[in-house]
Formats: sequence, structure tokens, C-alpha cells
Amino acid sequence: MSGSVSPLAPKTFAEMPALRGVRMATAAAGIKYKNRTDVLMMLFDRPASVAGVFTRSKCPSAPVDHCRQNLPGGIARAVVVNSGNANAFTGKKGREATRLTAEAAAKAVGCSEAEVFLASTGVIGEPLDATKFAGVLDKLAASATQDFWFEAAKAIMTTDTYPKVATRSAEIGGVKVAINGIAKGAGMIAPDMATMLSFVVTDADIAPAALQALLQAGVEPTFNSVTVDSDTSTSDTLMLFATGAAAGDGQAKVEDAADPRLDGFRAALDDLLRDLALQVVRDGEGARKMVEVTVEGAENDAAAKRIALSIANSPLVKTAVAGEDANWGRVVMAVGKSGEMAERDRLAIWFGDIRVAVEGERDPAYSEAAATAVMQGETIPIRVDIGLGSGRATVYTCDLTKEYVEINGDYRS
Amino acid sequence: MSGSVSPLAPKTFAEMPALRGVRMATAAAGIKYKNRTDVLMMLFDRPASVAGVFTRSKCPSAPVDHCRQNLPGGIARAVVVNSGNANAFTGKKGREATRLTAEAAAKAVGCSEAEVFLASTGVIGEPLDATKFAGVLDKLAASATQDFWFEAAKAIMTTDTYPKVATRSAEIGGVKVAINGIAKGAGMIAPDMATMLSFVVTDADIAPAALQALLQAGVEPTFNSVTVDSDTSTSDTLMLFATGAAAGDGQAKVEDAADPRLDGFRAALDDLLRDLALQVVRDGEGARKMVEVTVEGAENDAAAKRIALSIANSPLVKTAVAGEDANWGRVVMAVGKSGEMAERDRLAIWFGDIRVAVEGERDPAYSEAAATAVMQGETIPIRVDIGLGSGRATVYTCDLTKEYVEINGDYRS
Repeated sequence: MSGSVSPLAPKTFAEMPALRGVRMATAAAGIKYKNRTDVLMMLFDRPASVAGVFTRSKCPSAPVDHCRQNLPGGIARAVVVNSGNANAFTGKKGREATRLTAEAAAKAVGCSEAEVFLASTGVIGEPLDATKFAGVLDKLAASATQDFWFEAAKAIMTTDTYPKVATRSAEIGGVKVAINGIAKGAGMIAPDMATMLSFVVTDADIAPAALQALLQAGVEPTFNSVTVDSDTSTSDTLMLFATGAAAGDGQAKVEDAADPRLDGFRAALDDLLRDLALQVVRDGEGARKMVEVTVEGAENDAAAKRIALSIANSPLVKTAVAGEDANWGRVVMAVGKSGEMAERDRLAIWFGDIRVAVEGERDPAYSEAAATAVMQGETIPIRVDIGLGSGRATVYTCDLTKEYVEINGDYRS
Repeated sequence: MSGSVSPLAPKTFAEMPALRGVRMATAAAGIKYKNRTDVLMMLFDRPASVAGVFTRSKCPSAPVDHCRQNLPGGIARAVVVNSGNANAFTGKKGREATRLTAEAAAKAVGCSEAEVFLASTGVIGEPLDATKFAGVLDKLAASATQDFWFEAAKAIMTTDTYPKVATRSAEIGGVKVAINGIAKGAGMIAPDMATMLSFVVTDADIAPAALQALLQAGVEPTFNSVTVDSDTSTSDTLMLFATGAAAGDGQAKVEDAADPRLDGFRAALDDLLRDLALQVVRDGEGARKMVEVTVEGAENDAAAKRIALSIANSPLVKTAVAGEDANWGRVVMAVGKSGEMAERDRLAIWFGDIRVAVEGERDPAYSEAAATAVMQGETIPIRVDIGLGSGRATVYTCDLTKEYVEINGDYRS
């Protein structure tokens, strides 16, 4: 809506290689606007293993319900993603729309509806006219190509100011495998525009249960540790597919996530998820600075994460960052309101390498000028030592600017 | 900081009558700035019953610690409030400052330090030089007058754009009693400026335990149901004093909060607390509109309140209100993220009297123009029926505007 690319955008984009076993195509189906690319189809040449994690919202969208229902089958042949309409809070009509879309995709691909996964982003509460997909999906299935990752990432953008892509490689039992991923999202949510969606595909041969375990472990320190505005979409979707094409190179199928042959793959996957998650937060609506909040010395890791999120979601901390103000009093406030165990007289706080508070007081050696210099950077590291235990967590957020208010205060359009 | 009075300010202020048994005075002690009124002293002619509720922060200020320590004594003779310095996160120096201040006040009044209550608002983490109170408190004790409520309310303002006063009367056993209150606060917190403080005094004769029970019950639907920015001060303080002067008119002392003679008093107190709490939210930093969020049909009252707070604290709901956008999709989102039981297909949502969503879908009869007309008002009622039980709660907030970001993004000064 602002028309300009986030100042935190990557300087260069990853070269996205083709990935064996998956093809993609996009189309303009006129879901909300004419002549705007609004449908992405992803096709797997052979049945792929599938894993997914979804919004914790108690009011999930119809496509999220659909995916959750199909996930236990463990097999994917097609994914259909649309923008322009979230198909959320659309009641029976919404369920009917997902059924029709899955049916059309299954027919186009020649698979079962249980092997079709769906995601939608856009306005909430408007019925989605699934008949618009009807002719489109056949054509997409016929025209899909392997070398299409960057286009696919662009196709799912909404208020994103840049496409989000990442690629990694690893070895499983001596066989090289690749992982490609795309993501979209610019607020953690703005239901009419900025749901978080991400699709990751590997050519490794990994069984669905192992894939699900890898994804669930990988999402915690990555996508579940970024926050733009503390709001949670009805539609957040992160899916991981394994085409198994590397079996052709002799990679033996891995059935168990704890299998040591997955060590390198796990590291590469986690790194890719972190890369995509940070790209999302760096495109946070109105963001000018990225904030990295690390909490150490908490009672346990979960407590550390809750304290870190309390800091990262505090409007007063986020506006202070926007104002380049090393306002550590607001960090104390956010620790205090988290509800977690903290002892004022043991707290220490750093901005970058500058310790501003220690043992419940301002650090006598602290130089305001040095702290301000940290705040003038593009990435602001805030570190808090609670001094009670060994719990540790890092979360990522962005500053809260007038542009955020402007973007989200505009009338739905 | 913006210099202009909130558009939601009251059109007229209550005429504040003198209240028997309490006197007040203010001074400029130069705590942070020269020639700025920064100390309020409140004196009770005879020992008053005292009740208090304080911030839930795990990192409370030194004055909050001091008050909590003295509260079990149940008796107050003096209150000293300063602005310019919160005496929070000041370690041993902070405790020493409260000790010195209480000592000076006790000497000036001729009472025990255990009968002195303190509150501070201002910057966090700066040592408070208590010697600045030294000569001042003697003079204040000597010059305090009864007819000083409006001046007292002005003296404790920080980023407030108007003083907050309220008065009520009631009868206890046929004897007329009065209740006067003042408050300050403009963000739920901005540690360097806008802590919430409120002091309420009655001339009724009520025992400390009964007073505490009345206050704790009264604060829940009032001060604990308003939120500006979801942030919680290290210093929030609400105290209620009973001078007992009405005993001179024959009011028999009430020992038990459940005593039916307190029914009228309780209603008047609750009404006064609600009045003051709404004045605080209507002076929310950058506020242009007040939002009244009512949740009905939740599993229970506590669940209703958590859902209502999830809506009231959502940056996306608050920016939509600022933009006069009847964006009920964001209300659905906020219900969904609250974590409380909700069933999408039973939800109904109203803006004012306009039902915009029902049974998990947009209300087919809903007129966007009518909903927009509601959003253009000064007070925006949002009502959600969860459709599951009989839990009910109302919370109050304001919109999130660029001015909020501006006020809080400015450098500490």
C-alpha cells in the first residue's frame, strides 16, 4: 500500500534452482481483481510426503480446516493457493468452496481430493466463488514448470514489499538433496491482507511422520519466534513436502525423524525456515528496524520465550525503537508485565554490547551516546539476563511506526 | 507532549467539594525541572483507614514496595506523590529514597513512617534525590487546605491532557457521606511519563479490611477493565482512604464489607471508579475515539474478559477504529487468538446496533454504510456474542493513532 520496498529487504535474492518432482504455475482467475495473478498451483509428479503446521486461532479459515483434515493421509499431489479472499468466517459456503476447489484440482491432476491441499489469503468474511477456479486449474496443471520458484513467491505476495525465497542443500546418507521454500506475510496478520503462508519442498525421500516431526521442531525457534504486531491470522499455514525424487540417486527412504542420517538435513531445514521467517519480519508493515530480543537466565526456556515476546510485542518498546531511543525502562516494564518469575534486583539489560542496567539499577558505566549509537543501527539487539535460571529464547520483531498505523488504518480496499 | 487537549476530554469538570478530614498542598521541589509543581501531599487530620491495589508487575517501583509493606497496618496519616521520577528500578538507592521521604513526611506530620504512603511517576532507572523533599514537606503540612481537589488533580498530571476528578455521595445508615477521587494516566504506562495513579478519599467511617474488600471488588470492572496499549506500569497505584469524619454526624463505623448498610456506598464508589477509569482511557495517548468492547455468551466471565482484552489490545482492531473502518474480520481474528473457547459458526458481531456477522458468516442484511456511520462516532461500541455460555465482560480502550507512535517514539526528555 505504501508502494515502496521495505528498507530491510534483502539486497539480493537467492538463485532458486529447479527442484525435482515439483512443478508450479500461476494464473489470474479474477478472484477479487481482474488481470492480477491470484492463483498458484503446485504439482507433485509422484505422491509427495506432506507435513504442516497451522494457525492456533480458534476461528481458522476453511482451507486450514481442509488441510488439517487431509494431513493424516500424509500424501500430497497438489497445492492450490489463492489471494484476494481468505475464505475465512464464511460458514457453510466456505466449506463448499474448499470442496469444489479440491474437486477441480483433483480432476485436473488425476488424484484424490484427499491429496489436495489449499491455502487462501485475502479479505475475511466474503464468500469465495470457487467456480472461478474451474477452467483455470486444468490449464495450470498442463503448463506447470519446475523452474518457477521466484514467480511462485511473487504470486502469493499481498502487502509484502518483496518476494521471500530461500534454498539450501544437504546430504542424506551421502546423497545430495535440496530444499526450496517460499513465504509471504507482512503483518503476523492483517486479516484482509497479510496472513503468513509458506511452502517448502525437498526432493529428499522422507516419510510423512518424520517430516511432520522435523517441521514441528523447526517451526518453534523460527516462524513461531517472529512477531510483527502480536496478532494471529485465521489462515497461517506452513507446509513441507518431500517429493522423494532423490530416491532415484539411491537415497534410502528415512522413516524416523530421530534417524542420525537426517542431522544435516535438519540443520539445513531449520536454517531455511529461520531465513524465511526473518524475511517475513523484515517486511513487517511499516518496519524500519529489526529487533532481536534475547532473554537468558529465565526459569526455563518457555518462560524465557514468554518474556521475550512480552518485550517484542510491547507497543512502548517498539515505538521507542522507532524513535531510536535506548529506553531500557520500557524493557523493565515489559519483563515485569510478562507474569514470569523475575527479580528486579538481578536483572541486567543490554542494547547491543552496551550494558545499560545491572543488579536492578542503571549501569553506572553506561554511556547514553554509545547506547544511542546502537539504536541508530538497522538491527537492534536487546538482551536481558533474568539472573534466575538457564532458560533462554530469542524472538524477532520490528519497530512500530506511523506507517504501520497508516497501512492498517486505511479503509479495506 | 502534543500540547492539545484530547478530543475525548469531558466538556465540564465536576465541582469538587471539600471533604472532611483531609487536606492537601502542592509544591515545586525541582525533582526533574525547576519551577514545575511536582509534589502533592495529602494529610489526614485523624488516622484514616487505608486500602490499596497496585501494579501486578514483577518489577514494581520502590514506592509500591513501600505501600505494600505499610498496607497491613491499615492506617494512613499522609500521602506523598511526586512526578518527574518513578523511583523504579533504582535498587538500594530507591529503597533509601522511600525511607528518607517517609521519614521526612512522618516528622512533618507527627506520625509513624508506617502511616505514610508514597507514589512516584516519571522516568525509570534514575536515582531519586529524596533530600529535595526535606524542607518542602514541612511547609506542605503547614499550608494544606481542604478545598484543593482540582489543584491536586492538576499537580499529578504528566502527559495527561486534562485533570481527572470525580465526586459522589451516598448514605450509610442514614448519614450522608462523600467520596472524592483524582487520577492521572494517559498510557496504561509509558514508564518515563504515564503511570496510572489514583487517590480516592471518603469521610465515611469504614474499617480497613472492609475498605480493602470494597476496593478490590470495585477495581475489577473499572480500572482493571481499561487498556490503552496493553502495557503495565511498574508503579500503578490506586488507594482508597476513609477519614471517618462522618462519625461526628452519628455514622456508626462499618467493619464488614458485606454489611448491607454499605450497599449505597458501594454503588457510589464503583460509579466513581468507573468515571475515573474512563477519564483515563479517554485521555489515552493519541486517542481520537473511545472503544467499548462487550463480550457475551463466553464460557464464563473470566473468559469473556480475556476475549474482550484480546480485541481491545489488538493493534489491528485499534488501527481499524482509527481509520473508521468497520473491519469485523479483525474482530474475528482477535477472538480466535484469545485462546478462549469459541466456535466460529456461533459467533455474532455488532458495531453499535449494526449486526455485521452472524452464525460464522457476514450478516446478509448488513449495510456497510450503516456500519461506517457507527465508526464515524466518537465512542465505538463493539459487541461479540460467542454463543457458548453466559460469561460477560466489558472493557474500554481507545484507538491506535499515529499520534500514539509520535508521543512514544520521541526521545526521553
